[in-house]
Amino acid sequence: MPKIDRSADGDYVTLQDQSGTLRFHAIWLRDNAQDDLTRAPGNGQKLIALRDIPPDTSIADARMVNGSVEVTFAPENKTVRFDPDWMRDNAYDQAGQTENAGWVPGDIETWDNGLVADIPVGDYDRLRADDAARLRWLDALCCFGFAKVDGMPVKQGALFDLVALFGFVRETNYGRLFEVRTQVNPTNLAYTGLGLQAHTDNPYRDPVPTVQVLYCLESSAAGGENMVVDGFAVAQRLRGENARYFDLLSRHCARFEYAGEAGVCLRSKRPVIELAPDGALRGVRFNNRSMAPPRDVPFADMADWYAALRRFGEIVDDPAMEVAFRLEPGEAFVVDNTRVLHARKGYSGAGSRWLQGCYADMDGLRSTRDSLAEATQ
Amino acid sequence: MPKIDRSADGDYVTLQDQSGTLRFHAIWLRDNAQDDLTRAPGNGQKLIALRDIPPDTSIADARMVNGSVEVTFAPENKTVRFDPDWMRDNAYDQAGQTENAGWVPGDIETWDNGLVADIPVGDYDRLRADDAARLRWLDALCCFGFAKVDGMPVKQGALFDLVALFGFVRETNYGRLFEVRTQVNPTNLAYTGLGLQAHTDNPYRDPVPTVQVLYCLESSAAGGENMVVDGFAVAQRLRGENARYFDLLSRHCARFEYAGEAGVCLRSKRPVIELAPDGALRGVRFNNRSMAPPRDVPFADMADWYAALRRFGEIVDDPAMEVAFRLEPGEAFVVDNTRVLHARKGYSGAGSRWLQGCYADMDGLRSTRDSLAEATQ
Repeated sequence: MPKIDRSADGDYVTLQDQSGTLRFHAIWLRDNAQDDLTRAPGNGQKLIALRDIPPDTSIADARMVNGSVEVTFAPENKTVRFDPDWMRDNAYDQAGQTENAGWVPGDIETWDNGLVADIPVGDYDRLRADDAARLRWLDALCCFGFAKVDGMPVKQGALFDLVALFGFVRETNYGRLFEVRTQVNPTNLAYTGLGLQAHTDNPYRDPVPTVQVLYCLESSAAGGENMVVDGFAVAQRLRGENARYFDLLSRHCARFEYAGEAGVCLRSKRPVIELAPDGALRGVRFNNRSMAPPRDVPFADMADWYAALRRFGEIVDDPAMEVAFRLEPGEAFVVDNTRVLHARKGYSGAGSRWLQGCYADMDGLRSTRDSLAEATQ
Repeated sequence: MPKIDRSADGDYVTLQDQSGTLRFHAIWLRDNAQDDLTRAPGNGQKLIALRDIPPDTSIADARMVNGSVEVTFAPENKTVRFDPDWMRDNAYDQAGQTENAGWVPGDIETWDNGLVADIPVGDYDRLRADDAARLRWLDALCCFGFAKVDGMPVKQGALFDLVALFGFVRETNYGRLFEVRTQVNPTNLAYTGLGLQAHTDNPYRDPVPTVQVLYCLESSAAGGENMVVDGFAVAQRLRGENARYFDLLSRHCARFEYAGEAGVCLRSKRPVIELAPDGALRGVRFNNRSMAPPRDVPFADMADWYAALRRFGEIVDDPAMEVAFRLEPGEAFVVDNTRVLHARKGYSGAGSRWLQGCYADMDGLRSTRDSLAEATQ
């Protein structure tokens, strides 16, 4: 049975049970009250603004009533009940005591080549028919930052039906979809595709497209495997090797640019390793082809910044970090483009390779996952 | 006539002319060489990765040749010419010597109620027909974070033709467009729309839609003016009043959530004031209706964080900060949703008000502006 105590000045309460002690401020409790006048019962939207709550709000009384925490606020003289489980789930008493810069939330698992035996994959028909299968696939995608799909029909534009399972296409100057179609022609080296370093797509865009889908229609050429690298694992390995390198790539912005077609001039200024204010890894941008001259790194740091970027690239290129797979017609893979780098290996001989790609966003994907999770609880 | 000097160890060169002295590292110059083997002449994409440049790259020789800076790199023994104007434009020698946290780039102008006499506006037909007019309108939109359009046809979906002038619609769970249609009905207070505080849209989305378009089809009700507030001006005013408040709102994440319809569960964790790693203002999120309980602020800071958020809201509500205007049928306004808050005032009496809204993104908008600017140079 939880125990509730009001502080002497009414500034906060202390909730105590066998799992520990948690404090909650008067203003926090009042602002997040779950009564029907504070939050709309249907959609959960807050009906009041902070301006509707007196600035001198304090706790006049707090007690346990039938297993609920009942709090009376002054000067409103308003009494609200809180579920102690809800309070524990939303507690902030220990906030800010997180790890070093570069940590990842608990539902994210970083990986290296070891994942090759266990690539997350979903069967297209099951993803469509079975919510539990779709939830598992989306969970894996959020956890690892990529997942494959097989068993898709082989027809142009089928990737849109895949996107519809979790979100919405982000249209760009490349269209709603783009063609990655290459005829192998050994007389023209430009089309052999050798030496494409693993990269994130469109770092020159802001906001960057947070999801990329690549879907295979033809794949008769030898080679041409796809591969992915966990950019968060690269960043954390860099941090382990050289904390200053990690710091340099997260503290100073790089510049990216693409102006390769008429009417397009995309530029961004963002760090290679992006951190949230609390030091969590938020994203990685790495793409040599669209890197513009960096000019936000002070002179005294530039040589080391370049050394850090070089080392980041060496880790990206380390085969120990890569997971490779061959995409056959009717197969696709989806990456979290803020985290996972992708590349195509070179290929040779006769035959063709035809992929279609498109962009989407992680917010829709996470929303679909979370609402499926709530529905199946 | 510029003068070029090589440092004793070949680590950098010094470019000197009447405008000053600038240093450039060997690795920076080599990586950003403008020759056809380093960058594709057509699209400007970089053809090499950092791994293709020797780690011990240094400057073997540097001299002026016919007004160009000619640099020979060791150990490659590769000679490249640089335009001294290009070097000056891309210089980084003074990088990092910026203002306090919360600065804005030089092409952004913050504003308050004083802008009401000079609201940026474009005539729809001219925006379509005249590149110079479109460029001016896009420049104003980037500078002030919002702009009006008048003279549009009054027909459903016409806002898509407006978006096509600068970018691409961001489709979401609300559709490609959403209806903001209200029949004034004094017997139902829920539809009077009183008390909508200025806000940014969809802070629970990540990435947030960076552009919002609102387009008017009917407006016969009294009242219902639209108003906008410069979130960057609010943040800077808060900083001036109380540096700790500014710091608290930028250093700790808020949480936002929307789960108001079936299949949708959107959640984000982002600060109210978002800064780039160099302290530049990157964005503002403010929306009381979709704020979830904050749980990333340590207990010791929570009361002050709430005080800071309250003060932020008071500044938002200050009439001195607001620019109001009435949207008539065939008029629209576009906001940078990462910066400018918008609201609708209450209305009364008989009549109707019908808007259509949609989202888009700033990257496409800035790309259109920059490519128009380059074309008209």
